[in-house]
Amino acid sequence: MSAPPAVTRFILIEPSHAGNVGAVARAMKVMGFHDLALVRPRWPDVLTRPEAVERASGADDVLRAARVTGTLQEALEGVTHLCATAMTPRDFGPPVCAPREHFSQLLNPARPAPSGPWGVAFLFGCERYGMRNADVWRCHACLSIPANPAYGSLNLAAAAQLIAYDWRQALLARFGEAAFASAFAVRPAASLADQADAEQVAAMLAHLEQALVAVGFLDPAAPKKLMPRLQQLFNRAQPTQQDIHILRGIARAMQQAARRGHEED
Amino acid sequence: MSAPPAVTRFILIEPSHAGNVGAVARAMKVMGFHDLALVRPRWPDVLTRPEAVERASGADDVLRAARVTGTLQEALEGVTHLCATAMTPRDFGPPVCAPREHFSQLLNPARPAPSGPWGVAFLFGCERYGMRNADVWRCHACLSIPANPAYGSLNLAAAAQLIAYDWRQALLARFGEAAFASAFAVRPAASLADQADAEQVAAMLAHLEQALVAVGFLDPAAPKKLMPRLQQLFNRAQPTQQDIHILRGIARAMQQAARRGHEED
Repeated sequence: MSAPPAVTRFILIEPSHAGNVGAVARAMKVMGFHDLALVRPRWPDVLTRPEAVERASGADDVLRAARVTGTLQEALEGVTHLCATAMTPRDFGPPVCAPREHFSQLLNPARPAPSGPWGVAFLFGCERYGMRNADVWRCHACLSIPANPAYGSLNLAAAAQLIAYDWRQALLARFGEAAFASAFAVRPAASLADQADAEQVAAMLAHLEQALVAVGFLDPAAPKKLMPRLQQLFNRAQPTQQDIHILRGIARAMQQAARRGHEED
Repeated sequence: MSAPPAVTRFILIEPSHAGNVGAVARAMKVMGFHDLALVRPRWPDVLTRPEAVERASGADDVLRAARVTGTLQEALEGVTHLCATAMTPRDFGPPVCAPREHFSQLLNPARPAPSGPWGVAFLFGCERYGMRNADVWRCHACLSIPANPAYGSLNLAAAAQLIAYDWRQALLARFGEAAFASAFAVRPAASLADQADAEQVAAMLAHLEQALVAVGFLDPAAPKKLMPRLQQLFNRAQPTQQDIHILRGIARAMQQAARRGHEED
């Protein structure tokens, strides 16, 4: 694929719990998706029911923009690639794959790209019966979320959350922030630029050693392996220059406290 | 790391909605995790409240085995690596990273492995206020789920679901199914591991803090960010139990030196 999809739609087939519909809206929006369709929901007014609005939290705009259709077909406008989400594979069904693997194949730059815009839909069956065979057969892939083999009971909203998450990560990995309107940023770990060098660590350790002698913890006549051990500890800690500054301040305070004690002798 | 963790614990700090607690139990179990702890839940009987049991669905065994504690400290037995989940990074907090990147680094075979069992905990703050600074500062990493920058409102159970999923995938990729077999087969009776657990590090830091006050380095009325900074330093250092023993010996020597000084006054 050479361009991000023009459509990413979540389609709930015959959802029976209004709360779940709201929770799916929230799960979508939190990953940057807004296109929701409901096929034959149990409650015709599900999008405005209090449980739906409450569980949607701030994603009520997704609910308001959602469409309700009588058939799956009507919900597929602009969609070129359908993914079923079903716990049990079907004979004659599409290939079953884990979401991450499938998304990475789907977005592979080497994959022949459609000439026009393309779109993806994720289909979720009703809470009680899952997806019908006829609907699964329409799909290009059947996504199977790798879960605990002894307890695979994923709630509808939890499944939608995981699919939305993996799809977002795959889109970001392939197209970067361009796949979405706006950018997200994870702050990188502190740079190593201000990490103290070996000389500074050694000087700090020499200072600390004097302080440990001053407070009577280290006997210079029988030092054992104390300083090598502290050296290893601070090597692992990778102290910054400011850490070194603080540690030397501590050593100085220890020396002063010891000096006050000795003046008493 | 050369072995899977002996402990994977989900810790909810001051959860206020019983339904969320049940949904977290389900989210954990569906990814193969069973160790849940609640710190100061709003409802003392939260584990048996109808909303919790209902949302847990078949994960009521996780609820029944969950422990409720009065402090975070008590919930950390056997844990050597703490991950915060917080939307906003803190000054002096641990490095912020996306879960997948962090898990892949943590499980990297090249990473120096502790000689004994190790354990991970994922900390989740309360629904309304998130995590307190003091709790974030204790952590080795702050996991930031890459989400829609315009709407990052992840429900507590949804966040737990995503973390559990990524952690399961990372464990499977690194250790295969054995990661899960051993996680349940091998539960450490006590933290006899060589590497100090989070509880021991915290106790050492509390002791060191007293010593720093005693020698006049730390002004309790204006502590600034000294202790969070030292916490991060020692988190990076991964002290062994013997290191802890030595550090507490140093703290004791500082206190004694200070006491001798004060007797003079």
